Amino acid sequence: MRYEEFTIEGRNAVTEAFRSGKPIDRLFIQDGLQDGPIQTIKREAKKHDTMIKFVTKERLDQMSDTGKHQGVIAYAAAYAYAEVSDILERARQKDEPPFLFLLDNIEDPHNLGAIIRTANLAGAHGVIIPKNRAAGLTATVARTSAGALNYTPVARVTNLARTIEDLKKEGMWFVCADMGGTAMYDLDLKGAIGLVIGNEGEGVSRIVREKCDFTASIPMKGDIDSLNASVAAGVLAYEIVRQRLLRP
Amino acid sequence: MRYEEFTIEGRNAVTEAFRSGKPIDRLFIQDGLQDGPIQTIKREAKKHDTMIKFVTKERLDQMSDTGKHQGVIAYAAAYAYAEVSDILERARQKDEPPFLFLLDNIEDPHNLGAIIRTANLAGAHGVIIPKNRAAGLTATVARTSAGALNYTPVARVTNLARTIEDLKKEGMWFVCADMGGTAMYDLDLKGAIGLVIGNEGEGVSRIVREKCDFTASIPMKGDIDSLNASVAAGVLAYEIVRQRLLRP
Repeated sequence: MRYEEFTIEGRNAVTEAFRSGKPIDRLFIQDGLQDGPIQTIKREAKKHDTMIKFVTKERLDQMSDTGKHQGVIAYAAAYAYAEVSDILERARQKDEPPFLFLLDNIEDPHNLGAIIRTANLAGAHGVIIPKNRAAGLTATVARTSAGALNYTPVARVTNLARTIEDLKKEGMWFVCADMGGTAMYDLDLKGAIGLVIGNEGEGVSRIVREKCDFTASIPMKGDIDSLNASVAAGVLAYEIVRQRLLRP
Repeated sequence: MRYEEFTIEGRNAVTEAFRSGKPIDRLFIQDGLQDGPIQTIKREAKKHDTMIKFVTKERLDQMSDTGKHQGVIAYAAAYAYAEVSDILERARQKDEPPFLFLLDNIEDPHNLGAIIRTANLAGAHGVIIPKNRAAGLTATVARTSAGALNYTPVARVTNLARTIEDLKKEGMWFVCADMGGTAMYDLDLKGAIGLVIGNEGEGVSRIVREKCDFTASIPMKGDIDSLNASVAAGVLAYEIVRQRLLRP
């Protein structure tokens, strides 16, 4: 289990936690407090879509570990990132060829959560995300992953293109989801594979796409441009599942 | 094109529009107004996730058709529902066996929008939703459909089970997405088909499931229960697309 919950107490600590992007699951504020720092915390909570519960001072005193809650206690979730090597080890332990998701700057936490959920159910061994720009493991991601974040390891890397290069040396193949590629049904997607999903608006970046072994397209028969990123990830992941299930 | 935009002016009209669930795309409020009715409208806007733009009285006067805006003008989107017969006619015109999505009480407008988007790109001829409980065609649905709502007809019916019965008489088959069914790869999903997707929490209702010809399952290899509803719809829709593309 990679999940643990801890409390953050006091106005500065809670404000700071919000500002640093820590995933806050729940916020308790003493009923009736209206001063500036409390208003700031309420604003941050709203911005981060965090539920606020207004409670009595007695209740906060009970909940407090430090006795210095100043009218505010937050429950934060800590999701520890895994290492890429942990993900590969997981595949080895299951005696399966590695199946990884690599997300090239997914920005919407709902998409990130839904993709981690899909990765779990499609039997992928882990998800790799880049350190910059992309959404991190916030409370929204945890919620939309429907619990998958507790099972499917997520690694964070500085340079996705370099990670792909390193993993190729270990015998992995990489397929990038993009328009104008080969229809996914016509590609051999068996074996040790990394599925690369691009950003919601811009798709897979050039530098990452150039590192991939092939580009897979989902057939588009409609009038608009593209599927939702998490739907596209699901459709491609299950084409990989289908091919893996085929008897040789 | 099934989309048109119109303006709603005045406090009561705008409040009423929100309360009746009309899809409001944009809301313009006169800068500085703070009275009760305006606060009510702001609250409704927040509840419905509608953008507010604060503008000068002069700007509102220019925008106004009636000259009686009372400091508030809303832009509403009208999406007309199609009839089931329109959807079948569309398939006939394209000379394709009908391919329909039936949504058994999808409640989240983001899911509904993403599913309409998928229906469009998978080449489905239309989407059928029930009148009660389920999400309707709101501005959020329009936005998350990424424009698909302008192309893919959505029909609303009183009784989904009865609609399925009627369509079976026209030679359609119905496959219901649910756990414990046949693996989707092992079913013949070609021909005139309706794909039935259940509610986010409860799945397909018993009465609707009993009307379906077969139940298709997505293989689940993970630790959690189920895929996000829009991802599941995408995965199943594309298995239908794959089978339709197969040369006989």
